[in-house]
Formats: sequence, structure tokens, C-alpha cells
Amino acid sequence: MKEISGGASEAVRLAPGEAVRLVNTHGTQVVDTWCLTTADPSEYLSVEHTRRMLFALFPRAGDRLYSNRRTPLLELETDTSGCRHDMLFACCDSWLYRFYGCAPGHANCRDNFIAALARLGIDAPYVPNPINFWMNVPVSDNERLALEPPTSKPGDFIVLRALADVVVVFSACPMDITPVNGDRTPRSVAYETLRRSPSG
Amino acid sequence: MKEISGGASEAVRLAPGEAVRLVNTHGTQVVDTWCLTTADPSEYLSVEHTRRMLFALFPRAGDRLYSNRRTPLLELETDTSGCRHDMLFACCDSWLYRFYGCAPGHANCRDNFIAALARLGIDAPYVPNPINFWMNVPVSDNERLALEPPTSKPGDFIVLRALADVVVVFSACPMDITPVNGDRTPRSVAYETLRRSPSG
Repeated sequence: MKEISGGASEAVRLAPGEAVRLVNTHGTQVVDTWCLTTADPSEYLSVEHTRRMLFALFPRAGDRLYSNRRTPLLELETDTSGCRHDMLFACCDSWLYRFYGCAPGHANCRDNFIAALARLGIDAPYVPNPINFWMNVPVSDNERLALEPPTSKPGDFIVLRALADVVVVFSACPMDITPVNGDRTPRSVAYETLRRSPSG
Repeated sequence: MKEISGGASEAVRLAPGEAVRLVNTHGTQVVDTWCLTTADPSEYLSVEHTRRMLFALFPRAGDRLYSNRRTPLLELETDTSGCRHDMLFACCDSWLYRFYGCAPGHANCRDNFIAALARLGIDAPYVPNPINFWMNVPVSDNERLALEPPTSKPGDFIVLRALADVVVVFSACPMDITPVNGDRTPRSVAYETLRRSPSG
């Protein structure tokens, strides 16, 4: 298992059939997650296409996650938490921390995404809306949104199975202003890559 | 008033304080709508940022619409329909029509967006998730989504007031497979630009 410190990010390459298991070690950490195809970084996991293909606001175990060309890139094979995973809100960025009155230079998921890809030599053409695993954005009255602490438990994990050659980016969200990371303290998560499934 | 044929698109430049009035002439037409700043097309109306700032799935009259840098670009000043305007689904694209088994070359909002900007000499760096005015995507059980015919009426209109120097792109959606445009027939809409408001 490799650790991602709270507030940090990592990019992981996966071949078709390979998977990554992401563990919410402390149970309170939101992980903003992106996926791009290796062949063309302009093809990316698109939540607006995924919602349209799933007819759902949130992904559930067994769901495929689609690209902006309507190609399935990943399958959310396992989810021990059973909780909502936000796909509605942009990742945090320097402009959000400025909005909250923070000093310049606050770590943020947008910069984390760009930096993680740059370490692999990939120049991200832009920053898609991520899937924010374990981020608790409840919907009420079929319209209103809120930000609440995670309902996940220590050790909860997801498995993302690759359906194409992809790069997956995880950012252990640095948010310490809103309660999305529980007590406003970013904490570490861990991941490991898994070999092909028996049927893969 | 200028007309946009069913299935076609137009791009409109607005200075701060100017507005555009968009009329759903026949009441059944969805209009995919984007907005970019004139100074930098990589700053765009971002529905994922707008949801986060509004804490709502759908925009309502009086709401400001935010960029990916969390700057308000437009205000939805007037909305005679009072209905939902989808901000959850990607625009239609060649891959969607292929998914539905259509022959190549079907008009689509993605190509319309790119073409409308190209006519102004703007090379769109990518295609954001639009606001789909009058598109009826009901939410049930705070999670499930559907596609239904519009509930707007002939002559319903919206007014979008510019809060910055922007380009607004309208695509009278060419969709003729799903019921988002009512009886599966794209129809014309009309628009006019409005001078600055008395307070503008």
C-alpha cells in the first residue's frame, strides 16, 4: 500500500483489467478523483456524461464511469461505504480559498491535479469536474444541496477497475474550512494497484 | 429579434450591463447555453462552480451564474417559465447520436458550440457542461434523473444580464431522438440584445 498524505495527490497508470483499491484509512477523508485516457488527455472521465448514462446523481457499486466521448473508462467495482460520492461540485481551487478569505498559497485539489499529472509528464488541457469519493453532498427536495461531514468509516475502500488505458488522479482534499473532511483536518489515505481480475 | 433555426447556433457578445433576451418561440425548444469571458476563453461559465455557489441543482430567476474562477459572469434576471433548467447533462454530441444508432453527421450541440465560436474567430479550448434552458430533467428520490418534455409555454423567455465582457453561445438543440424537445422536432427560437439596465 502506498500512502497519500492529507492534502497531497498521486497519479496512477492502469492498463485495461487492472484496478486500484483506494482506502479511506481514517474514514473522514474526501478524495477528489479524475481519470484521463493515456492515449489522449483530452478524453477524460466526465461526470456530466456519466450522469446522463446512469440517469443518477451519484455513482453506485457496479456502475461504469464514462468519458466525454461516452466510452466507459472505469468501473466502480467495489464500495464498502455505500454512501454518496459527490459528482456535483467542482474541486477546491485557489479562487475558493480566496473566497473564504485564506491567504494565497493554500493547497487545493485543482493545483494537486495539475501537479500529479505533470509528474508523469502530462500537461492537463483543463480540469474536469472530479468524482469526489466519500464527499457527502446531500440533496433535499430534489433540488437543494448541502455540504456535510462524511458518513464513511475508517478502512472503507473502493475498487476502480480500468476498462481502458488510463491515468487515475487522486487528491486527498486539503479542505480545512468546510466540514467535508469531518473535523476540518485533511488526513492520509492509501492505495494499491491490483492485477487483472480472473476474468480480465 | 434574430431567429435561430431549430438545430442551429449563434454566439452573442455582451459588455457588462448589457443583456440578451432569449425567447422560446414555440415553447418546446431546449437551448444549450454557454458563456466564456471575452478576455480569456479558458474562463467559462461552470455549472459545477455555479451549483457550489448556489447550493442548488437548478438556476432560478435572480441567480448569478459563476465561472470556473468563481466570478459571476451572468445573472438570470428574468425567467417567465419558472421551470427547471438542466445543468446536469452534457450537451448532445456525435458520440451520443452514434450511441442511438444514428448515421454519422447528425447535427449536435457540441459541434454547434465550436462552430458558433469559430465564426467569431474564437478557438474553444474545450466544451464545458452547458446550462440547458427549458430542458426538463426531473430529479426523484434526491438521486434519480429522467428526461421529459419541456413544461415551458410558447413565448416564454429568459433574460441573461452580463456581469463581465462575455460571449454567450446558444444552440437550439437538434435532439430528435429523446423527448427533450417535446415531439422530437427541433424548432426555432429568437433573441435580442438589450441595452444596459437603468441601474447598469
